[in-house]
Amino acid sequence: MKVAVLAHEKFPDRAKTAVGLLRYSDYEIEAVLDRDNAGKRVSEFVPDVQDAPIVAEMADAPAVDALIIGIAPIGGGFDESWRSDVRTALERGCDLISGLHYFLEDDDEFAALAADNDCDVWDVRKPPEDLTVAQGVAGEVDAEVVLTVGTDCSVGKMTATLELLEAARERGVDAGFVPTGQTGIMIEGWGNPVDRVVSDFTAGAVEEMLVERGDDYDYLFVEGQGSIVHPAYSAVTCGILHGSMADRLVLCHEAGREAVHGYEEFDLPPVPEYVDLYEDLAGPVHETEVAAGALNTKGIADDAEARAAVESFAADLDAPATDPVRFGERDGDDAGIDAVLEAIL
Amino acid sequence: MKVAVLAHEKFPDRAKTAVGLLRYSDYEIEAVLDRDNAGKRVSEFVPDVQDAPIVAEMADAPAVDALIIGIAPIGGGFDESWRSDVRTALERGCDLISGLHYFLEDDDEFAALAADNDCDVWDVRKPPEDLTVAQGVAGEVDAEVVLTVGTDCSVGKMTATLELLEAARERGVDAGFVPTGQTGIMIEGWGNPVDRVVSDFTAGAVEEMLVERGDDYDYLFVEGQGSIVHPAYSAVTCGILHGSMADRLVLCHEAGREAVHGYEEFDLPPVPEYVDLYEDLAGPVHETEVAAGALNTKGIADDAEARAAVESFAADLDAPATDPVRFGERDGDDAGIDAVLEAIL
Repeated sequence: MKVAVLAHEKFPDRAKTAVGLLRYSDYEIEAVLDRDNAGKRVSEFVPDVQDAPIVAEMADAPAVDALIIGIAPIGGGFDESWRSDVRTALERGCDLISGLHYFLEDDDEFAALAADNDCDVWDVRKPPEDLTVAQGVAGEVDAEVVLTVGTDCSVGKMTATLELLEAARERGVDAGFVPTGQTGIMIEGWGNPVDRVVSDFTAGAVEEMLVERGDDYDYLFVEGQGSIVHPAYSAVTCGILHGSMADRLVLCHEAGREAVHGYEEFDLPPVPEYVDLYEDLAGPVHETEVAAGALNTKGIADDAEARAAVESFAADLDAPATDPVRFGERDGDDAGIDAVLEAIL
Repeated sequence: MKVAVLAHEKFPDRAKTAVGLLRYSDYEIEAVLDRDNAGKRVSEFVPDVQDAPIVAEMADAPAVDALIIGIAPIGGGFDESWRSDVRTALERGCDLISGLHYFLEDDDEFAALAADNDCDVWDVRKPPEDLTVAQGVAGEVDAEVVLTVGTDCSVGKMTATLELLEAARERGVDAGFVPTGQTGIMIEGWGNPVDRVVSDFTAGAVEEMLVERGDDYDYLFVEGQGSIVHPAYSAVTCGILHGSMADRLVLCHEAGREAVHGYEEFDLPPVPEYVDLYEDLAGPVHETEVAAGALNTKGIADDAEARAAVESFAADLDAPATDPVRFGERDGDDAGIDAVLEAIL
């Protein structure tokens, strides 16, 4: 499917969804909309993803099937400066895909235009109506379930999940992806927005996905969210942990992170404490283990230092670890990722 | 406020909300509606709560200010056999209070009648629109926070919270109640339905209540939900644990319960494991301890056996424990409840 991705004034550093789509999705991205960088190309900013022209507005984009909103302002509201782009897209017959809290299908103008032009509007963050409480049956699916868990939010759980999935598939493993957040859902074209469901249905929203796909794959890689000791988001983390009944966990961490992102008065516990917490909390519902780790080393410039950080992290975990973005296919040294995959598959 | 409570065909054993209101609320309950028991009195079924006549329908009830829906069918739907009672109440100018998932204010007939007769409709389970993510500030309120946590759902956390609160107040302690579920919210006339909010806002919904009331009391008693190892409901439990930043925990358990209620294939872990789990999970956000226990011994007929069960539970906790419903004011022996209060205050 050919798409354009809206990322006005935020590409690439504050356009996590847009960059995620460029890196991991199967969409053919024909244009990125960013009025601050019109005339340049994606490759000038992010070299190792699919390339596309950057245009000032939807009217300048080539023919596409859909417009995707690829940024999420704080609060998830709709920026009125995007209205003309969305209007143009609908007038051209494009579908809409959006992860905003503001649902585009509930916007009167967009709803009318979508109806007139036969366009689908997919608000990724709107949970399905039929979700309910977990039945406690995720453990019964055929697939082995691997879940990424974190020491904090924004440490790279989705990226680690997708990198490990890709590496597993390259090695012939029959593995599927279970997204839990808006970018992952857009990439996969399917999934429940677990952080937006009714709190009582958190585990159930994960279980429903595992039951739907669990007999189609040998392995399912579940994208984790937040951290089990996050002052705001631990509920979602806990619901995913129990709802997925994961067989193995991959602990994700960012090198150098010492306090909760955005909640700096809360120190992160030592890594071995996370291992115990996740395993002890999961155990009464489904026995599991932290079988491997993924360390995000983007804050370390020197490769040797990054490798040392990974080794230290692996020692803390007492399990294999790597930085799946930095090491592996990109630097021609697969030993780290091979060890991680061996531990989790 | 004078009220009637609807509990058709379910009073008293399957009318948990109605009985909770009779036992703990300040409402003057003028009638219970139960068409199966019309002509009898509450005291014939439940001797130790406020008494009221049981009537067949709203038309038979004396003058009241509000009708409260005091039962919740599985799924939380509205039973159409109640429609004439609700209609009658509105025609008589009564307000409505309901904890159903089906929101009465969104029912066209009820909305029109409420407008015509100037009645308020309070759907207790509808979360306020302005809830958001936790800021991590519950620990900053003046009050000391005591939270009930459980080994399972339906072990008596709300009851234990209210009994301990009442006993504390009788001893002159300045303590407030923070409800988190529908019955507690009806009793208090205030509160956020934590199990119905957006999952990302679970901790925030608790924090918001603590911030609102935390400087008005010396102690706040927070009603817990579910269990931290419940296959379906642990997300809500975890959000309350971190969102409340409780200073002390009271572990609630039902004597003899060995498996998760309704999920019988999941064994409950041993009591000391719960103590470690709750303390270890809470610690990185806010240091706390399981300071006392509340054991629900209703399944044990013999008082001496019940006392032995409490002693065994206290030994498992390494902390004082009691059955606050069975022992204390009702049997004239305050030693157990005094020890528990001393530990948590």
